[in-house]
Amino acid sequence: MPFDYLKPLLNTEKTKIVLLVMDGLGGLPIEPGGQTELETAVTPVMDELAKNGTLGQIISIRNGITPGSGPAHLALFGYDPLIYDIGRGALEASGVGMALKKGDVAARGNFCLLDNAGKITDRRAGRISTPEALPIVEMLQEVRLPGVEIEVRHVKEYRFAVVMRGENLEPDIKDTDPQRTGVAPLPAQAVTKSSQKAADLFNQWIQRATEVIQDQPKANGLTLRGFATHPGLPTFEDVYALRAACIAVYPMYRGVSHLVGMQIIDFEGDAPEDEFSALQRAWDDYDFFFVHIKKTDSKGEDGDFYGKAKIIEGVDKALPQLLDLNPDVLIITGDHSTPAKLKSHSWHPIPFLLHAPTTVRPDSQNSFGERACDQGGLNTFSALETISLALAHARKLEKYGA
Amino acid sequence: MPFDYLKPLLNTEKTKIVLLVMDGLGGLPIEPGGQTELETAVTPVMDELAKNGTLGQIISIRNGITPGSGPAHLALFGYDPLIYDIGRGALEASGVGMALKKGDVAARGNFCLLDNAGKITDRRAGRISTPEALPIVEMLQEVRLPGVEIEVRHVKEYRFAVVMRGENLEPDIKDTDPQRTGVAPLPAQAVTKSSQKAADLFNQWIQRATEVIQDQPKANGLTLRGFATHPGLPTFEDVYALRAACIAVYPMYRGVSHLVGMQIIDFEGDAPEDEFSALQRAWDDYDFFFVHIKKTDSKGEDGDFYGKAKIIEGVDKALPQLLDLNPDVLIITGDHSTPAKLKSHSWHPIPFLLHAPTTVRPDSQNSFGERACDQGGLNTFSALETISLALAHARKLEKYGA
Repeated sequence: MPFDYLKPLLNTEKTKIVLLVMDGLGGLPIEPGGQTELETAVTPVMDELAKNGTLGQIISIRNGITPGSGPAHLALFGYDPLIYDIGRGALEASGVGMALKKGDVAARGNFCLLDNAGKITDRRAGRISTPEALPIVEMLQEVRLPGVEIEVRHVKEYRFAVVMRGENLEPDIKDTDPQRTGVAPLPAQAVTKSSQKAADLFNQWIQRATEVIQDQPKANGLTLRGFATHPGLPTFEDVYALRAACIAVYPMYRGVSHLVGMQIIDFEGDAPEDEFSALQRAWDDYDFFFVHIKKTDSKGEDGDFYGKAKIIEGVDKALPQLLDLNPDVLIITGDHSTPAKLKSHSWHPIPFLLHAPTTVRPDSQNSFGERACDQGGLNTFSALETISLALAHARKLEKYGA
Repeated sequence: MPFDYLKPLLNTEKTKIVLLVMDGLGGLPIEPGGQTELETAVTPVMDELAKNGTLGQIISIRNGITPGSGPAHLALFGYDPLIYDIGRGALEASGVGMALKKGDVAARGNFCLLDNAGKITDRRAGRISTPEALPIVEMLQEVRLPGVEIEVRHVKEYRFAVVMRGENLEPDIKDTDPQRTGVAPLPAQAVTKSSQKAADLFNQWIQRATEVIQDQPKANGLTLRGFATHPGLPTFEDVYALRAACIAVYPMYRGVSHLVGMQIIDFEGDAPEDEFSALQRAWDDYDFFFVHIKKTDSKGEDGDFYGKAKIIEGVDKALPQLLDLNPDVLIITGDHSTPAKLKSHSWHPIPFLLHAPTTVRPDSQNSFGERACDQGGLNTFSALETISLALAHARKLEKYGA
């Protein structure tokens, strides 16, 4: 197991680590030779941290491989995504707080709109709003099947999650979303013989569920995707002896954190200040805090270069609130790059800033940006080493061997 | 399998990648603190590419490991040479266009000179010229054995390749070259029981072959080395979905390219201009082009520091012809270092230049040389990641995971 060598080295130092992830942080200049989003953003606080700390850049999976959000966070948390695979259904269900267990089968659900012939006319039911979707989700929650327990929760807008619990359920089932309109949703088709039982049950559930919502004007159908069971990951407590907390707005990131055993902190609002206030309240109860900022990625995906720079500036402005807590280790990085120029996740190295006042070795860099990071004291390294580096700087790791 | 995670990510973007390998590119200064061959060479075109692109340096196998040409190219192509092993006989035979199949046994052959007692007086037959060797190879082609098919082709000067095809042939056979003069060639000795049949047949062939050339004044004997079968490598089409072409002068490089499924482009001449013209003619038919420049390595091996710099300058001068094709991705690198100072291959990191106008993240470097590369935005990475990086910049790779 990848973590075996770490376990004997862990001690019980009472130090605090913060991993601040600005999703999709890395960028590209719009004009050849220009500045990236992070280089463009005015970030006096981070620049000061860069000056006193060490920079570097991390590779999530391999050079050239663009990670999705799930694998990217697994890598940051030290779980090699080429070894550990989390099904999207498990992520989504965990993200809305459904306690997924080994043997449960989870799926992501989309509401859709069907015509009289049962064919899909809108795969996302016109992206109906959360208030519109909630009562329809409640109708789904009434559907029961003998022999299994079924839980349905709303996720966001037209999206929900469904978990089935029972004996001998396996998740190797194909998506029912045909990925186009003009055709009916597909049946849940088992890929392996051992998944036949679960597929049959999901088909029964889909039939019953579609009946109960058939008169809804905006969402009278549904599709299921990403069938998955609990990935059985070792927890942060298991492998790092860390009581870990997740402070994130979006379900997906709460989901992956939950699956590695982090406690999910609830809070109101979605500004950096709201997240840092939640951090402050949880401060005494945990050793490790994963704080996730989503909007850097969203602006990148929108192709909004200056919007992304502005989000970074907002984080920088709020940062003193976090620094007032005096974390022993603060890492500021991303899970991947999302250059506004490409309007998508990318494979480019991810800027990495390490602040650890008592143990850091300073480098020659004075600002936080891609060019500074590619010259940073940590050079380029694997995202998988992020947590062991944090543990070391928090003095939580003893010597390996005598 | 190392490539399994890549396959589902491959798309069908119609973009073009060129991997320009200057063999043995990396060098060393002659005087302490001086410039290397690449730093000494005047290369305005590459410097401009460096300014707008990203630099880095690659390690072929491990720090400190000097690769031979076969493993070095395998690594560049993304095939870990510690996993994939190609016998030299297979390389040589493939290099001269012999269609080696699984179960065939190939060997490299050297003509030698024997005295009246059958003892070797010259292991390379005075390095006889190609015109002198060709008729002797024709004599070898006349030798037949029952139950197997035997093919012999000339390689270069005193070198030839032989392939034996038949039932139950295995290649675990020791070299017949005793590596010194004054003794007779060794018999082909089977290392494993299953190779006994092939060894016996090769011994019969050697005896008959030596009889037919025994009166030749310059080359009256032969030795065989590097017995090998087809290594069964997955092809570039298999693992990268790339229609790949090889433009190389030397048989060895054509051989390794052929073994990974590249099409070998034939052309006249051996100057960079000739190779780039061949590239131009093949441009529409392939997605990926491996262009190999040999003479940087030859000059390095000769200890000719300025000769090597001059070869680099010649490539730089011809480069606009290649750039006129507007490749989406151009990588300029080496397979290993061959410092003229050491007159041999070496383990030093290999300079790496990435030109990819629409997707590259610029770094702070403005010229192509070892010191600039060690400060480059890509830092130091494994040669194995060269192709995935190229695929990413050519937009041929989808996201890994959701």
